[in-house]
Amino acid sequence: MNFGSDNVYGVHPAIMDAVVAANSGTQASYGSDDFTHRAQDQLSELFECELDAFLVLTGTAANSLCLSTMAPPYGAIVCHGDAHILVDECGAPELFTGGAKLIGVNDPLGKLQPGSIEQVLDGFVRGEHDPKPAAISITQATELGTVYAVDEIAAIGELAHGRGMKLHMDGARFANALVSLGCAPAEMTWKAGVDALSFGCTKNGAMLLEAVVFFDRALAADFSHRRMRAAQLVSKGRFLGAQMNSYLEGGLWLDNARHANDMATYLQGVLEATGKMRMPLPVQANEVFPIMPRALFELLLSKGVVTYQWPGEGPGNDTVAADEVFARFVCSFLTSKADCDAVVSEVEKWNGAV
Amino acid sequence: MNFGSDNVYGVHPAIMDAVVAANSGTQASYGSDDFTHRAQDQLSELFECELDAFLVLTGTAANSLCLSTMAPPYGAIVCHGDAHILVDECGAPELFTGGAKLIGVNDPLGKLQPGSIEQVLDGFVRGEHDPKPAAISITQATELGTVYAVDEIAAIGELAHGRGMKLHMDGARFANALVSLGCAPAEMTWKAGVDALSFGCTKNGAMLLEAVVFFDRALAADFSHRRMRAAQLVSKGRFLGAQMNSYLEGGLWLDNARHANDMATYLQGVLEATGKMRMPLPVQANEVFPIMPRALFELLLSKGVVTYQWPGEGPGNDTVAADEVFARFVCSFLTSKADCDAVVSEVEKWNGAV
Amino acid sequence: MNFGSDNVYGVHPAIMDAVVAANSGTQASYGSDDFTHRAQDQLSELFECELDAFLVLTGTAANSLCLSTMAPPYGAIVCHGDAHILVDECGAPELFTGGAKLIGVNDPLGKLQPGSIEQVLDGFVRGEHDPKPAAISITQATELGTVYAVDEIAAIGELAHGRGMKLHMDGARFANALVSLGCAPAEMTWKAGVDALSFGCTKNGAMLLEAVVFFDRALAADFSHRRMRAAQLVSKGRFLGAQMNSYLEGGLWLDNARHANDMATYLQGVLEATGKMRMPLPVQANEVFPIMPRALFELLLSKGVVTYQWPGEGPGNDTVAADEVFARFVCSFLTSKADCDAVVSEVEKWNGAV
Amino acid sequence: MNFGSDNVYGVHPAIMDAVVAANSGTQASYGSDDFTHRAQDQLSELFECELDAFLVLTGTAANSLCLSTMAPPYGAIVCHGDAHILVDECGAPELFTGGAKLIGVNDPLGKLQPGSIEQVLDGFVRGEHDPKPAAISITQATELGTVYAVDEIAAIGELAHGRGMKLHMDGARFANALVSLGCAPAEMTWKAGVDALSFGCTKNGAMLLEAVVFFDRALAADFSHRRMRAAQLVSKGRFLGAQMNSYLEGGLWLDNARHANDMATYLQGVLEATGKMRMPLPVQANEVFPIMPRALFELLLSKGVVTYQWPGEGPGNDTVAADEVFARFVCSFLTSKADCDAVVSEVEKWNGAV
Repeated sequence: MNFGSDNVYGVHPAIMDAVVAANSGTQASYGSDDFTHRAQDQLSELFECELDAFLVLTGTAANSLCLSTMAPPYGAIVCHGDAHILVDECGAPELFTGGAKLIGVNDPLGKLQPGSIEQVLDGFVRGEHDPKPAAISITQATELGTVYAVDEIAAIGELAHGRGMKLHMDGARFANALVSLGCAPAEMTWKAGVDALSFGCTKNGAMLLEAVVFFDRALAADFSHRRMRAAQLVSKGRFLGAQMNSYLEGGLWLDNARHANDMATYLQGVLEATGKMRMPLPVQANEVFPIMPRALFELLLSKGVVTYQWPGEGPGNDTVAADEVFARFVCSFLTSKADCDAVVSEVEKWNGAV
Repeated sequence: MNFGSDNVYGVHPAIMDAVVAANSGTQASYGSDDFTHRAQDQLSELFECELDAFLVLTGTAANSLCLSTMAPPYGAIVCHGDAHILVDECGAPELFTGGAKLIGVNDPLGKLQPGSIEQVLDGFVRGEHDPKPAAISITQATELGTVYAVDEIAAIGELAHGRGMKLHMDGARFANALVSLGCAPAEMTWKAGVDALSFGCTKNGAMLLEAVVFFDRALAADFSHRRMRAAQLVSKGRFLGAQMNSYLEGGLWLDNARHANDMATYLQGVLEATGKMRMPLPVQANEVFPIMPRALFELLLSKGVVTYQWPGEGPGNDTVAADEVFARFVCSFLTSKADCDAVVSEVEKWNGAV
Repeated sequence: MNFGSDNVYGVHPAIMDAVVAANSGTQASYGSDDFTHRAQDQLSELFECELDAFLVLTGTAANSLCLSTMAPPYGAIVCHGDAHILVDECGAPELFTGGAKLIGVNDPLGKLQPGSIEQVLDGFVRGEHDPKPAAISITQATELGTVYAVDEIAAIGELAHGRGMKLHMDGARFANALVSLGCAPAEMTWKAGVDALSFGCTKNGAMLLEAVVFFDRALAADFSHRRMRAAQLVSKGRFLGAQMNSYLEGGLWLDNARHANDMATYLQGVLEATGKMRMPLPVQANEVFPIMPRALFELLLSKGVVTYQWPGEGPGNDTVAADEVFARFVCSFLTSKADCDAVVSEVEKWNGAV
Repeated sequence: MNFGSDNVYGVHPAIMDAVVAANSGTQASYGSDDFTHRAQDQLSELFECELDAFLVLTGTAANSLCLSTMAPPYGAIVCHGDAHILVDECGAPELFTGGAKLIGVNDPLGKLQPGSIEQVLDGFVRGEHDPKPAAISITQATELGTVYAVDEIAAIGELAHGRGMKLHMDGARFANALVSLGCAPAEMTWKAGVDALSFGCTKNGAMLLEAVVFFDRALAADFSHRRMRAAQLVSKGRFLGAQMNSYLEGGLWLDNARHANDMATYLQGVLEATGKMRMPLPVQANEVFPIMPRALFELLLSKGVVTYQWPGEGPGNDTVAADEVFARFVCSFLTSKADCDAVVSEVEKWNGAV
């Protein structure tokens, strides 16, 4: 009953098979191998456009390196107050951009709103004493498991470009958002104004793999130097390429995401039906965020249910009382209904006593 | 006949098996898994001391992060002029240290000599206008396939500590040097004054794995933050831990290195016996560096022998003529005598015509 | 009628005389001159302790370099949401610290409260994914012209040290706060837990001069390198030393600050007496922050009254309506009652029409 | 008898008068004052072109900020092995560029030669593992008091632009070089391919003043942010503007430089005539570099002659024996023949005994 994160699960067997199969013969190193070349072609086909794609090792690297092409050291990056780049990466974006300033906005439901972004930017009245507005970063699906609609992304893209800024999408859970919206990858990205994407694979069944995808190809000009300098260029690159080949092959990535999303919808339903917690957020991806009594939360932990108290103030549209916990349950491509039912069983046994 | 680099080969089957075997059930993420804990214990046993070890993804990351604990942004790091950190990492050490200055010394045979280091340091007569001497970095085995004797390391360690500096060892080919010297890991490292080590595994049969090993544990104080910020903390850390478990298990790492070294010794012998090239360097690890006519070098490339023209001026104890090439052949755990013989066969067929 | 900033005024004549007088004969360069040595002695006497003091050129340099000794690149610095280091220095603290994260807290009246700081720090529950809490920075007098009482500083100092953090004071208007409190410099600084101070002189009558003062002398260990690398070491250092000599001589700095504070008190009184604006903040230093109708604010600008619309939301204890302006008037050592009366005269003529 | 550096002297009286005169009334801060605007116009007239000029405080700042517009963090900057940016600025260029790599070339006479630059650049054969060639920096006059001829600059400019690189000139002693060549400022800069210039004033009679001058105006696009973030934007900017106004007015700067150069020529002549030292370098600016017996050098120090043992190997066209010193004497706008004669008198008294 591990709902702690997507990454507590291992690798999808098909992807592992592909890694094993790639271990044959010699291959050129540093990303010049056949597997990586094919991965780049796959991504171009997937997004239905010419693009520049680079494989890297962690989501933090993908995000920070993306941002380093958009924001100068004296630049500002606007993001949500819960954004991974702001609160989970220990300053990696500052490292890779050379010191750009991340400005977090605490909009409800984990989703940046254009009006809030404009308010931040309009507050830059100090000329050279302010950082230079450079980029907006959105997370799709968001940190709270919600999903931007395509036209919401497009509105932010328009805002960014209208002010000479770039739009980055942190797609650590890109697949979960995509199957949720049911649209094409192109619609959710470059057609809506996204200039560069962190295309996450690890949380959704890969071993160690993210891609940086540039739709605005001018941003990619020196990216090979940037990746090398960031220690993200892998000598035995075939093992990244092979992961991507398998991940995209036959829609495996969509199947994995669809299953995880379905499990989250199921879990939200059965937990809510217990009447012992409330659900401030819709399930739009693979995460469930109940507000529950602290005593129940602690009981679940004691029973071996791995979950997580989400840091911060809550979802923004509900208030978490002092004796309550805003918890997070993440479903993965391997989560089963039985896992969900086992949690519910513990919840139902709880009689409200502390 | 691929002698281009150690990394053109794949992963040793036993290590791949361990990766596959680790893909079962859930595990705590971000290096809190059982495999990683065991890897840390293994390293401690291997080096016969208490130490702090952290798994990272690339050799560049291991080196740059090590150095970031030793050198402040206004510090100086002395290394060989051929050092990987100086000429192969596109400024990654500068990135991770925040701008420390690497000072390369062109000693012969790829090995830093104490006198040369002292000459550099004695030239720091400008007070605060100079960087602050902070670290010395040596590569074992060196970029030219030579190996520092234990007392040579100790002399540099003494010099470093006598001046309040730290000693880093880039051990991308640590195993090759170790089997060459036939000493214990402790003797070649902390007993000789090494404060931190980049313990390389990828070139010697792993997939994606290096360890940063701190013998001076004070240097490790904030390393978990440093690694995270450098985007080198892996969510599915079990797959790093499992590689290390297998790499060290039963001496696999030593067997791999011994085989590669033996092949290099064999290759040096049979190439030299052709009388068509000269060997300015002894084989002390898994690399062979002949000086050969350019015409022969180009013939070999055209015949499918993958090798590499080593950049720069030559080994320092011989002169490379304008119509000659200083070439590098790297042997790996998978290189065979047949591979070597196939090269020799091409060399012998060459009649000296251009 | 220029109330735009303290720095629109020139240099106090006595300080200018000292600069001119220093221009005689040769002096050792780079801060080894007699004037600078005397300045260091003066600061030590002034603060009644052994300390390390370094002269630099701008307040931004003083702040950022101070912070670079306290916070590692992966560190966090807690400050007020209005702090100069956060919103007026275009990322200089990020540059000089190598990427530390500044976290702004929007407490009322421009003053950080211990409870708010603790709330931020208690929210660091992500381990290595969070930055490491490193420093707290307070501004004395604050950006809103208010002043921390000595025991308020001490409470923050205790909090900082209790958590292994350092306390920085941005003293751009140190003298104004000091005469306001009527205490000794030592009481307002190291006795209350301040580890390092940006001792501002430029706003209070100097030409180009700030001092970085370390009470925690361990922080100063490599500061000469830091200052040089930051391009803040001046070759003709005598001209900085001479400014400081004169600034502190005979209490000139206190006289200047007292005058400016008195003018602010006077201005607040006469403006408030017009009945055409309200004063949400007490005058505790040399600044007046009225909330006035936007039409009146614009009238004043049109009449040549140089003032400034303070960015942001207001003082936190009052609400600024859409047709109002939260304005700032700064008084200097050269501001006169006639200047104040001239403003009042324009205000009184205004009949409320837009 | 102080020949230690140009900066041991004070400020030219006319410049000091201008500083005093600027201290009247209020002025807009942060470089928006009348004096600064006039300085910008003066520089444009001087160089006979449209340009962007920014006043800063130190030569290190001017150089490092210039380079930060030319070289990305993953870029390489080629300079002479004696260059101030390489060996006298404690890593400031690395700080302000975010980690670019400076590559020093030890050509004789302190002057970079195109062939040597090309050799460095041709050695970049490692693709993304190498830094990206970004800028060449030359010093005019050089660290060894020699001067590039206009066509020598043009040859380097052509080389730079032919490889997509920029050309920076460190003009800490720009005036000395200019009067030496007797050409127009435009000829020695943009007409010869210089893209940006550190225009030094401090060594030649100003108090605290350098200008960053962009002939390639695209480089200046975000420079106001860069300068602010580097803590080089001065609040009371009028005092920088006033220095420049006076410095350029009526050719004061050229008069100062001509005098200093003349004194150096005189000093070289009279020292050489003593027969007790040799002069490996021609005097082309305001510096004299004799090679003399160490005993004589120490005698001079003991007699109060302030001079300096130049670090490093010597001028490249002569050999400094173990019992000799390669010394530097710098003449300034205030150096007199009597100062020179006083040194000679001490030299003549020396009888060769140690």
